[in-house]
Parts: sequence; C-alpha cells; structure tokens
Amino acid sequence: MGSNEEQWEPYDELVIATGATPFVPDAPGASARGIFGISSLQSGINVRKYIETEQPKSAVIVGGGYIGLEMAEALVAIGMNVSLVERGAQVMGSLDEDMAVLVSAALEEAGVHLYRQESLIAFETTAGKIHAVTTDKRTIPADMVILGMGVSPNSSLAAAAGIPLGAKGAIRVNERMQTEVPGIWAAGDCAESFHLVSRKPVFIPLGTIANKHGRVAGINLGGGYATFPGIVGTAVTKVCSVEVGRTGLHEKEIRQLGLEYVSAKIESKTKIGYFPDSGRITVKILAEKGSGRLLGGQIIGAPGSAKRIDAFAVALHARFNLEEMINLDLGYAPPFSPVWDAAHIAAREALKKI
Amino acid sequence: MGSNEEQWEPYDELVIATGATPFVPDAPGASARGIFGISSLQSGINVRKYIETEQPKSAVIVGGGYIGLEMAEALVAIGMNVSLVERGAQVMGSLDEDMAVLVSAALEEAGVHLYRQESLIAFETTAGKIHAVTTDKRTIPADMVILGMGVSPNSSLAAAAGIPLGAKGAIRVNERMQTEVPGIWAAGDCAESFHLVSRKPVFIPLGTIANKHGRVAGINLGGGYATFPGIVGTAVTKVCSVEVGRTGLHEKEIRQLGLEYVSAKIESKTKIGYFPDSGRITVKILAEKGSGRLLGGQIIGAPGSAKRIDAFAVALHARFNLEEMINLDLGYAPPFSPVWDAAHIAAREALKKI
Repeated sequence: MGSNEEQWEPYDELVIATGATPFVPDAPGASARGIFGISSLQSGINVRKYIETEQPKSAVIVGGGYIGLEMAEALVAIGMNVSLVERGAQVMGSLDEDMAVLVSAALEEAGVHLYRQESLIAFETTAGKIHAVTTDKRTIPADMVILGMGVSPNSSLAAAAGIPLGAKGAIRVNERMQTEVPGIWAAGDCAESFHLVSRKPVFIPLGTIANKHGRVAGINLGGGYATFPGIVGTAVTKVCSVEVGRTGLHEKEIRQLGLEYVSAKIESKTKIGYFPDSGRITVKILAEKGSGRLLGGQIIGAPGSAKRIDAFAVALHARFNLEEMINLDLGYAPPFSPVWDAAHIAAREALKKI
Repeated sequence: MGSNEEQWEPYDELVIATGATPFVPDAPGASARGIFGISSLQSGINVRKYIETEQPKSAVIVGGGYIGLEMAEALVAIGMNVSLVERGAQVMGSLDEDMAVLVSAALEEAGVHLYRQESLIAFETTAGKIHAVTTDKRTIPADMVILGMGVSPNSSLAAAAGIPLGAKGAIRVNERMQTEVPGIWAAGDCAESFHLVSRKPVFIPLGTIANKHGRVAGINLGGGYATFPGIVGTAVTKVCSVEVGRTGLHEKEIRQLGLEYVSAKIESKTKIGYFPDSGRITVKILAEKGSGRLLGGQIIGAPGSAKRIDAFAVALHARFNLEEMINLDLGYAPPFSPVWDAAHIAAREALKKI
C-alpha cells in the first residue's frame, strides 16, 4: 500500500510499532528550511544533502540530550561553527549536574559554544530559510538548526482506538508487550517499559530497548512465550573527547521517589597509572541509605570508559548492594584498570557513608 | 628485622601473607644466568637490567600463561627474536581451545615463534649463562629465558605449623579469611578462594583477588566483620593486537564437574559496522543444559573488548540464566556496539541449543 492510501485490513493480532517523533517547538519559523529533527536514516541523509548543497558555516543545536550532543560533535568535526542552546542548567539531563559538567567541558574544549539556561524564542528566517536563532538572551547566527528536544511517542492512533496510554503518553504494555486491549500489542519507541529500579513504568525511547520489545512481541505473536521484565536505564554515548555511561536512577529521580541515598564520586584511571596512555575515568555511584542497595552509576572518561557501565547495569538487574559490588570479580590487568577497579573504589567510598 | 635473621614475636592474631613463587623446572641448567621468573617489581627490574647490560637478541619464553604471553609481547615490542614454548596444545589454558587459537594467531602475527606441544628438556649454558633451550623437538637459541610456568603458593610454613592446606596446596580459609587454626589468618596468593560457579575451593593467584583477601582479613582483624564470598574466575589480558577476557568455567572445567552444557561462539563488532575503526570481537558463552544457567564467558577482540567480560562476571555472581542475559539492559550507542550487544547475540545463539 502506498503512502496516503487508506485501506481496511482484518487482523487476528495487531502490533502497533509506530515509533516516536522528534519534538518540534511551537516557535515562529519552526518550519523553515534548514531546520532538522533527527529520527531516521532519511533525516540523516537530509542533513547531509543540505550540508553538501547549501554549505552552511554555522549551526545551532537546540537541546543538550543525546541527539543534540552527538550532532554537535559531528558538525564541529567537519569544521562548522556550532552553538548549543539548552533550556536547563546542564546538558544531558540523565546525568547528575556534577557529572554533566565534565561533558560540558569536553564540548567547549572541542569548540562548541554552549548556552545553558537559555530558552528558544524564535527561528529567524529569510525567504523561508533559517539564518539565526533567538533565545531569551541573544540571537545566534545559524545557517542550519538541529532540533534535539526529545521525542514523543506516536501513540495518538492507539489512543483514538481506546488503548490506554501510560508513561509520558507511551502505550501501556505488560511484560509480554500486550496492550490492555485483547489482540493488540505494542513495541518499540511508541511503548513504555518497566523500570526495574524505580519499579515504575517509564518512556525511554532507545534503540536497544525497542529491539528487545520487538523480540519479545515477536516470540509471543509466533505462539511462543517470552517476557520483557524491564530496563534499568542504561545509556552510553560519546561526546567529543569523553565517553559517557549511565544506568539506574540519578539523584533527581531518587529524590522524586522519596528515597534516602548516599553517593560517592571518585576519579581513577582507565589503565594502571604508569601506562603512557592511561586516561582519566570519573565514576559516581548511588545507593540507598541503610540497605546499601545500588541505585545507579555514572561514568565519564577516556576511551574505554563507557561500556564499563554494563557492570553497574547487570548489578542493578541483580539488585546488588554496595558490599556485593566491592566483592565483584571484575577483570584486572594493568592495561585495563588499577588493581581495584573504579567501580570497586566508588562502592567502597559510598559504603563509608551508608 | 633484616632478612635471614631469626627472632621470636608473640602474637594475638597472625596473618600469613607469604604469596606465591614462580615454578622453576627441575631441568639441567635451570639456575643459569639469564633465566628469570617474574613475580615482583624486583624481578622486572632484574630483567630490564639484564637487557640493558647484556643486550640479548633472542629470548625463549617457557609457558603460555598470562606471564608468558605478556612477556612475549613486551620483548617482541623492543625488537627481540622471541620464541614461546608451551607444553600443552594451546596457549592460555584458561580459555577453550577454539578461543585460544585467536591468541596464538595474534602472537604469531606480532612475530613470536610459537612451539606448542613441546616439552622443555634442558637449558643449554656457556660459562653459567643461558645460550639455548632444548625441547623434545628442537634446540632454540636463547640469550635470555623467561619462566612462565605458573606459581606455587608459599604455604610450607603454614603446613609445617599444622595449618590445613586446600586447593593446589594453598592455605585453606573460610569466608572471613581464617585458617582452620584459631587466631591464624591467611590472605593473598598463598590462600585459596571459593569459586562461586563450581562451588569448589580453587587456587587462583591474581592481584585483584589478593587485594580483596587483604581487605576482608584486615577488616576482621580490626574488629569489624567482613566476608569474601568468592570469585567467578575473571581474568583479562592484552596479547599484542588482541584483548582477552574470560570468566566462569571453560569447557574442560565444566566437563570435570560432570555438568551438561551448551555453548555458542559468535563474532560481532566493537562499534557499529559503519564506524571506520570498528573492530572484531569474538564472544563465547557457556551455559548449563536445561536450566540455561550461565557458566562462563570468553571474549577476544579489538581494543575495548576485554573489560566487556565484566558484564558476564557480574551475571555469574547473580547466577543469571540465558534468558536473563538476553534481557540485560547493556549500553548501546554506535561507537560502542551494534544495537544487540555481542553478549546478547551469544546468549540468543546458546538459548537455541538449550
């Protein structure tokens, strides 16, 4: 069926996998040429074509989440003059502020102009094409704009059909990826997930989660039995010179749950110190006060840092406490870590405050 | 007290932390000048001094374990003609043979001459200095020899005092690092550990384990209470162009326990394939047949591979099964892995055979 055609199809089982759409702000000029949301291979191709044909010299990124930061890195790498406007006090709201400053520093070191606590007011256009972005504090010239203001689940079709929505308007599903309407399933960025640490449904539109949704829905639809117990909030990214990993809950999320917690932030090395290319790695650990149950981890550091968050992620799945973290048999050899892994050191520091 | 002095000291609590000593073979010429075991900072300094003053052109490494492989890499890197003699069919006996071949290939690619299934017969000497190594198949010129034939726990003092020994002659200890004699503790490379997967005491003399022993013994001696539940057999190393990680049990160990198992070996990438510096990563997973309980993991690959074994290690601590492995919320972004992590892919393949 071609696009924009309407057709009736009967079904026994229906899967809604409508994904999510980048948020477009309700600001003057938002539909101008040269303003791009990034959500698909095609949107990447569109940006590339625009750069090739229009040869923009300056870009403004609106929003300091994963998409915004990765696009900032990409555009500064090809020699553009890049500014990033973020409404909040920090980039990467999924990190605590004391960790996010390390990401800001890496961005600025790479030459990105960072404007925090500034709100978008308008897109300035000439003949329908972007030429500047106005915030509540300044006007920034821009031959091109990238919108990195998050995505919304494409759940309006589901809602119109009477299917209950959940976290942030994503389609509510159970462990088998069934909606609350018999015979209708949902999977991917349009559906919510269960957060195994907060024990609450959440909307976290990431490719790795969407793929797991799809596997579980597919097995169930095929007559098998599979469940997706949930996620722990893991995400990794690379921002200029630093790798970033985070999992579990960060301080703001923990406070919102009303939990008491302890934290420790330590600095260590990605290799034993005498290695010439040993890099810095900063690890923050968060645990419930009293019980010591691990609540989250954040890592920022040199190459080789980001995927170390996986050890924290698996420990969250296992509901380990700090004492269990300290005793984890993590790999040690001089090219990879000091004899006490950064995760161990952080857990030991946090344990002192428990 | 200086060395070789004898003195009586009363004690309330005694800690035995005598470490381990490199095994020296009972072969002619074994005490010749230019033959080195590697166990301490001083033995490294001795090797370095010998290289500076004697300027050896060729080296033979006896034994293909961690020490042997790391020394082979170091010596070939400074331009020496390096041969490695290994009695067994493979280097790195802690890996399965189908994974160890990848390590052999990296060694040979770096220029190391590898002689497997060859036994040391004698060290040929001239005026008390090494000049060749004779195996059961050939004589290899050698201006220098490194012994990498493993270590033995220094437990004879303990044994003479009536303290029971355990795995491979290491001092038997409980979770608190107490020997079976009241008031006497043991920690480090002279003491055994409990293997959480095989549920048996083992002798695994690695720095990271020795440090954990010391922490637990120290807390207990200081009047606190701490336990060291055990290890899961994690080790990482770098051998020329490849990083190596292993944890849990390998096939031979599983068979010795009489367990039935399934395995899967998959090849993936350290970054998404379109990244120019995406490298190969080979992951092997072992799980109990029927239950699907994870038994072990092995990883060999490009930079960024080794520490990924930590996710398997934590999963072993948690006694996770393959279905739980597949649902782990591991970090994904294109610079770090395909959307299904290599660990997920391996677990999915193994699950098909369960």
